[in-house]
Amino acid sequence: MLTPALITDAVGRALAEDAPWGDLTVQLSIDPDARLSAAVVAREPGVFAGGPVLVKTFRQVDSRTEVRGLVSEGHRFAAGEVLARIDGPAQGVLTGERVALNFVQRLSGVATLTSRFVAAVAGTSASIADTRKTTPGLRALEKHAVAAGGGKNHRFSLSDAVMLKDNHLVALGATEGPELTRAIRGVKDQLGHTTAVVVEIDHLGQLDAVIDAGVTAVLLDNFSLADLRTAVERVAGRTVCEASGGVNLETVRGIAETGVDVISVGQLTHGAAALDLGLDAVDVAAG
Amino acid sequence: MLTPALITDAVGRALAEDAPWGDLTVQLSIDPDARLSAAVVAREPGVFAGGPVLVKTFRQVDSRTEVRGLVSEGHRFAAGEVLARIDGPAQGVLTGERVALNFVQRLSGVATLTSRFVAAVAGTSASIADTRKTTPGLRALEKHAVAAGGGKNHRFSLSDAVMLKDNHLVALGATEGPELTRAIRGVKDQLGHTTAVVVEIDHLGQLDAVIDAGVTAVLLDNFSLADLRTAVERVAGRTVCEASGGVNLETVRGIAETGVDVISVGQLTHGAAALDLGLDAVDVAAG
Amino acid sequence: MLTPALITDAVGRALAEDAPWGDLTVQLSIDPDARLSAAVVAREPGVFAGGPVLVKTFRQVDSRTEVRGLVSEGHRFAAGEVLARIDGPAQGVLTGERVALNFVQRLSGVATLTSRFVAAVAGTSASIADTRKTTPGLRALEKHAVAAGGGKNHRFSLSDAVMLKDNHLVALGATEGPELTRAIRGVKDQLGHTTAVVVEIDHLGQLDAVIDAGVTAVLLDNFSLADLRTAVERVAGRTVCEASGGVNLETVRGIAETGVDVISVGQLTHGAAALDLGLDAVDVAAG
Amino acid sequence: MLTPALITDAVGRALAEDAPWGDLTVQLSIDPDARLSAAVVAREPGVFAGGPVLVKTFRQVDSRTEVRGLVSEGHRFAAGEVLARIDGPAQGVLTGERVALNFVQRLSGVATLTSRFVAAVAGTSASIADTRKTTPGLRALEKHAVAAGGGKNHRFSLSDAVMLKDNHLVALGATEGPELTRAIRGVKDQLGHTTAVVVEIDHLGQLDAVIDAGVTAVLLDNFSLADLRTAVERVAGRTVCEASGGVNLETVRGIAETGVDVISVGQLTHGAAALDLGLDAVDVAAG
Amino acid sequence: MLTPALITDAVGRALAEDAPWGDLTVQLSIDPDARLSAAVVAREPGVFAGGPVLVKTFRQVDSRTEVRGLVSEGHRFAAGEVLARIDGPAQGVLTGERVALNFVQRLSGVATLTSRFVAAVAGTSASIADTRKTTPGLRALEKHAVAAGGGKNHRFSLSDAVMLKDNHLVALGATEGPELTRAIRGVKDQLGHTTAVVVEIDHLGQLDAVIDAGVTAVLLDNFSLADLRTAVERVAGRTVCEASGGVNLETVRGIAETGVDVISVGQLTHGAAALDLGLDAVDVAAG
Amino acid sequence: MLTPALITDAVGRALAEDAPWGDLTVQLSIDPDARLSAAVVAREPGVFAGGPVLVKTFRQVDSRTEVRGLVSEGHRFAAGEVLARIDGPAQGVLTGERVALNFVQRLSGVATLTSRFVAAVAGTSASIADTRKTTPGLRALEKHAVAAGGGKNHRFSLSDAVMLKDNHLVALGATEGPELTRAIRGVKDQLGHTTAVVVEIDHLGQLDAVIDAGVTAVLLDNFSLADLRTAVERVAGRTVCEASGGVNLETVRGIAETGVDVISVGQLTHGAAALDLGLDAVDVAAG
Repeated sequence: MLTPALITDAVGRALAEDAPWGDLTVQLSIDPDARLSAAVVAREPGVFAGGPVLVKTFRQVDSRTEVRGLVSEGHRFAAGEVLARIDGPAQGVLTGERVALNFVQRLSGVATLTSRFVAAVAGTSASIADTRKTTPGLRALEKHAVAAGGGKNHRFSLSDAVMLKDNHLVALGATEGPELTRAIRGVKDQLGHTTAVVVEIDHLGQLDAVIDAGVTAVLLDNFSLADLRTAVERVAGRTVCEASGGVNLETVRGIAETGVDVISVGQLTHGAAALDLGLDAVDVAAG
Repeated sequence: MLTPALITDAVGRALAEDAPWGDLTVQLSIDPDARLSAAVVAREPGVFAGGPVLVKTFRQVDSRTEVRGLVSEGHRFAAGEVLARIDGPAQGVLTGERVALNFVQRLSGVATLTSRFVAAVAGTSASIADTRKTTPGLRALEKHAVAAGGGKNHRFSLSDAVMLKDNHLVALGATEGPELTRAIRGVKDQLGHTTAVVVEIDHLGQLDAVIDAGVTAVLLDNFSLADLRTAVERVAGRTVCEASGGVNLETVRGIAETGVDVISVGQLTHGAAALDLGLDAVDVAAG
Repeated sequence: MLTPALITDAVGRALAEDAPWGDLTVQLSIDPDARLSAAVVAREPGVFAGGPVLVKTFRQVDSRTEVRGLVSEGHRFAAGEVLARIDGPAQGVLTGERVALNFVQRLSGVATLTSRFVAAVAGTSASIADTRKTTPGLRALEKHAVAAGGGKNHRFSLSDAVMLKDNHLVALGATEGPELTRAIRGVKDQLGHTTAVVVEIDHLGQLDAVIDAGVTAVLLDNFSLADLRTAVERVAGRTVCEASGGVNLETVRGIAETGVDVISVGQLTHGAAALDLGLDAVDVAAG
Repeated sequence: MLTPALITDAVGRALAEDAPWGDLTVQLSIDPDARLSAAVVAREPGVFAGGPVLVKTFRQVDSRTEVRGLVSEGHRFAAGEVLARIDGPAQGVLTGERVALNFVQRLSGVATLTSRFVAAVAGTSASIADTRKTTPGLRALEKHAVAAGGGKNHRFSLSDAVMLKDNHLVALGATEGPELTRAIRGVKDQLGHTTAVVVEIDHLGQLDAVIDAGVTAVLLDNFSLADLRTAVERVAGRTVCEASGGVNLETVRGIAETGVDVISVGQLTHGAAALDLGLDAVDVAAG
Repeated sequence: MLTPALITDAVGRALAEDAPWGDLTVQLSIDPDARLSAAVVAREPGVFAGGPVLVKTFRQVDSRTEVRGLVSEGHRFAAGEVLARIDGPAQGVLTGERVALNFVQRLSGVATLTSRFVAAVAGTSASIADTRKTTPGLRALEKHAVAAGGGKNHRFSLSDAVMLKDNHLVALGATEGPELTRAIRGVKDQLGHTTAVVVEIDHLGQLDAVIDAGVTAVLLDNFSLADLRTAVERVAGRTVCEASGGVNLETVRGIAETGVDVISVGQLTHGAAALDLGLDAVDVAAG
Repeated sequence: MLTPALITDAVGRALAEDAPWGDLTVQLSIDPDARLSAAVVAREPGVFAGGPVLVKTFRQVDSRTEVRGLVSEGHRFAAGEVLARIDGPAQGVLTGERVALNFVQRLSGVATLTSRFVAAVAGTSASIADTRKTTPGLRALEKHAVAAGGGKNHRFSLSDAVMLKDNHLVALGATEGPELTRAIRGVKDQLGHTTAVVVEIDHLGQLDAVIDAGVTAVLLDNFSLADLRTAVERVAGRTVCEASGGVNLETVRGIAETGVDVISVGQLTHGAAALDLGLDAVDVAAG
């Protein structure tokens, strides 16, 4: 979730990148006393995310800028809808425009794509979760956008949950049977009780060993729909069933209908394009 | 272009984000002395970018890691092609994997999309240029990826070139005729001789006034193909003709054939999805 | 756990604080070419932690310094034991001495105190866990020291696990009964599956509602030994039983013998004093 | 002493450490509009320090939070006394609680321990001074706490005063007699007149040489009480007599009564445990 | 040009450098409630620059400080003139004094020296431009001061314009004739259209090749006045003529009268001494 | 004095400022494999300072660059003398050239000016000391240059020594007589014994009161030569006599001959212009 420090940091870096020693154009063309009213307008429909970042961007450029009528995070909008009104010194509004839009276009793109996946599994017991396939430097913002779009956040980083994948199991010398159970238990013994342990498996033959070890979730990677169904049945509620691999808007419904609890989708963040939002000047007042 | 400081900074931030207090999983499952050989493999065809970032990521996690056989920036690859080989302590290779891939997948996505636009205008006199619609925090990397894909870099930021758009001209009180010429000259008088001045116009009626002022380029925004052709003819080489607005892979060839010099395309960076690249373990050696 | 970046950051800040514009004394008294061999010696018995930080401190001051014979993290030592040998330019060894000792004295103090608590509960099923009562700026290092002393790490921060305490339950309007169960489930519905949910309760009357909601752990705060025993029995393995409140070296064994799974102890970090370690010059060689 | 920048920096780092991507619990359980009144209450008697850090912590989390009735730095309090009242959005108060307490508990622990040493030497001419044995990253705060407890601050760092100890004297090739005098003078000749020079000696045989050189203070390290008395007599006010080594609450009075001017005590900072302070909710108002 | 972030950063670093752990003197001598009115007074005539930095310095030390009557950037003042009035808590005003003066003295020194060069070329067509010979860490501020003094800003950095000097031409294997033309065109082909290309030449024999390539400017380095005149004539307006080398207040008029467009002068920044400005206490009010 | 961290920080900031996203020119004109040998050559005589900064600059740009034959800090050189030889990849040498020169030109300018003041007082008992009138952000480097030029360093910052000037004395309500003595003693009582106390006085009438209080130094500000002589006589070695005000190369000898111990000179740092040093290519080898 977003904190003031995270937002300030991301916005400060973006502004420094976009105007390291000022906006030459506005300083030579816009009266410092001129004011501008503008509207953030959707050019296509979608789900909104990034409002607090947009507000911070304009206010960090010029603290006298006001943002009004900002729609809430997760708001579903139509093309043409006004998402926020910006009022302030014209220099600041124009200087901040591109950075503010770069943020909300990308974050709303993530929220919108997430909402499509969520809609696709409506009525099933599956939730849609993100992954660590996020844009470097923007993980907290993109995970927030996933939540705004109705998705769930998987582990934030390598530091807050254990996920044993094939390479780890090979390294532990235990890919199935009682050795696998023992190996997982060995890992658990070194962890505090609040750290989740997820184990990824490739085939049904590994399933019982994992369940016997007691894990937070079993990740069924690239399973066929039939095998997913078998796995869900066999697990019988003893742990969380997570599916991943080959998930897209065409396949996700079928996967959800196998009864899995969670479907993790890398595409939510690494496949989302920026949504088309613009800033339209509404009124200009000379200084 | 990329500098060691830019790369170190981006990689450091991404690693801190992805493993703020370490990779719990590898520390509990992988022998510190175990080694891993792995290959970065393309799962779809494309154009590569981000190699130096990938190298830095693995080496920043563990300086004993070696990257070999790295293809060059801008290399065009087929699905299945090996793009680099990674050799090092298994803990470090696995910890760095996701961050390294997040970088090269996104940057190669930008390079690949750019190369499609460049191919689409082949044989015309038009070059393809990027915009400021980049991912916040990654501008230098994404502009590098555009260049790797055969595109040209437009101004880097608001600080290194002047671009007068509609709002600026309105504020200057001069949207056409001699007033526009005078206003542009007034701006130029305050600038050093190495700062480019681009003026965006909406219709042909503004063109002569801009040319008379002497500018680096005139940006013809959302012009019809007919009007683009007329503009190119009328400019007759006296300044650079840049086109923008409504540019996509379907329309770009037609625009290029009007004779414009530059076509700037926001989609290169804000419309690119991550390319599908993976890390395959090739060999694991116990410690 | 410790990462190179965490260590570099902590050491860099400490050195900047201790010698912002250099060590006046060594620069005026020590020949730049003189070398010094020294030993880190224990002046009292204990459990060691912070070795990688000590190494980094000396090497960051002068990369030509070598640390040899460093005992491992968690090593139990006697008074008088040599814990590491430092060899390098005398200027650097003397400049780095205080910062290096400040780190390992504090971290070994934490590890040593932790090991006493762990020893006190030996043979029971209880593990000893830390809390967020850490020294500001040193959390990762202190949690590492707890692990070196045989303790378990509780959640790292407010961001990686949910812990509902009395104030949160009051705010949710649900402190017992079906309302409590519903409230907890409402929280869980908004979380990803890898985020732990711990609920703190004050009396046995809240227990069933919490268990019915399905939680990672129930935190039994300031329970009498009798009530702890009752709670453990009633939980019957359905969730983790964690005890806290009034825990010290006198009381911890009794608490452990009630059968709880985890005892969280703030004192591990906020009650640990620095252990007495010193740096003894072994040999000085003129430059 | 504390500056706004120092406090902001320490608080920012601590909050980032404790809630890198937000406080999951309050965001899921507390209404953003709910308000909370709470009191910082002493659970044991002591001397207070860290008030400005506590204020900054709560206000940095949420600038709408008010702190009232804050006792002054160095205030001596009884168990049960209210040290400050906090009023603000409930989310922010609960998110900031642990960090704020971690600071004031540690700093008040230092102030309290210092005040005990100061009380122990009351009526003598000796003052109690701190050392560089501080918690890495918290030196300015801990030195402030020492002053709040009635102690004096020794040099802040290796950069602001010269202290020649045994290793330095050995390196200078001059541990007593005229060589020592000459060596000290040689050091002084390279220093500006505002930089203090302290020379540590191990036995009375070195004393005259040091006094002859003219120093800010002579540090009598691990001297017997008899030797301290002899040294004080022989110095006869010509320089400051500082004692160190083996100083604790049992021995400090005896040392002070020898007539030394300053007793430096590492334990003030590296031996202080956190004082027991808590935050009690006083009133909760729904949003 | 200056941005709030640039100013905040420069001021924060300067204050941290000048009072890392507070201003000991004011804290021991000035009542926290005392107020001070003071005036920034010119002790010699000059041109002012750095006002926003001065304001930020005082306000960053204590946000209750007010600055009134601040003269504008580029204001020409006489000795004895009051340039600003400062009102605020006496502690803060005195703590901020030196840093604020260090900034405006240096920046006004640059502006004043620049204005002398600008005056010396009055009536000619030449403008005076700065170079990259700026104080490390203060480039943006010093370039702002040059503009305040009536000068023009040359490229800001190595990243925003290309300047091919002798070493680069040698490396390209092309110092005159068609090879030079081809080499410059090769460079231009890899650049976006907004990046300026300046080529430095040593003698007239290189001129035609450069003009044929089409460049933003030709830099005539260390040309005699006669050769400058010849060059200007031969260029005949086809590109910008920039002169450099051996420029000082004695020679600059002669150079300007050759008809060159720009004269770049390293001395503007690396030869400017601090101007003598002081802070005079006007009124002190006890707290 | 300089530390690796200080140098790294200053160099990193300067390089980021001078090539935020790379050196466009070298990347388009210089073969990555080409090598360059160059010499840092003095174009005027002077005293050298900044060598370690120069080395770090070139090596931070490209760690394969070697610097050989670097003269030592404080080395006195003639015009034409070679001060260092640089060997490395041509791209890196050319990219680092300007930043490296900006540092050593400025620092050598300070060292050279200082050496003139030191020479002017040769044979007297006075030393030449710097002040806090340094370039913001470069204090440690400039103070190092003063020392290289034979000067002494006064207090580094407001945090490491107390200096009571007129405004402070007015605030203390004590500008002469026993009140002044008492006020100074009151300040001293709150300080540790290693913190210097300097008191600035305007006239002889204040002198006895200051001496009676016991201070590190008395600063005789803007005293006539006659009054300086009287002051020195009256002090008779009981404290350090420091003179300031109206000090320049014409007046400094006379001031020194009054017998004062220290003359502090703002001009050393705020009046120094950059010395003329250049980088001459010696040999270029194709890649």
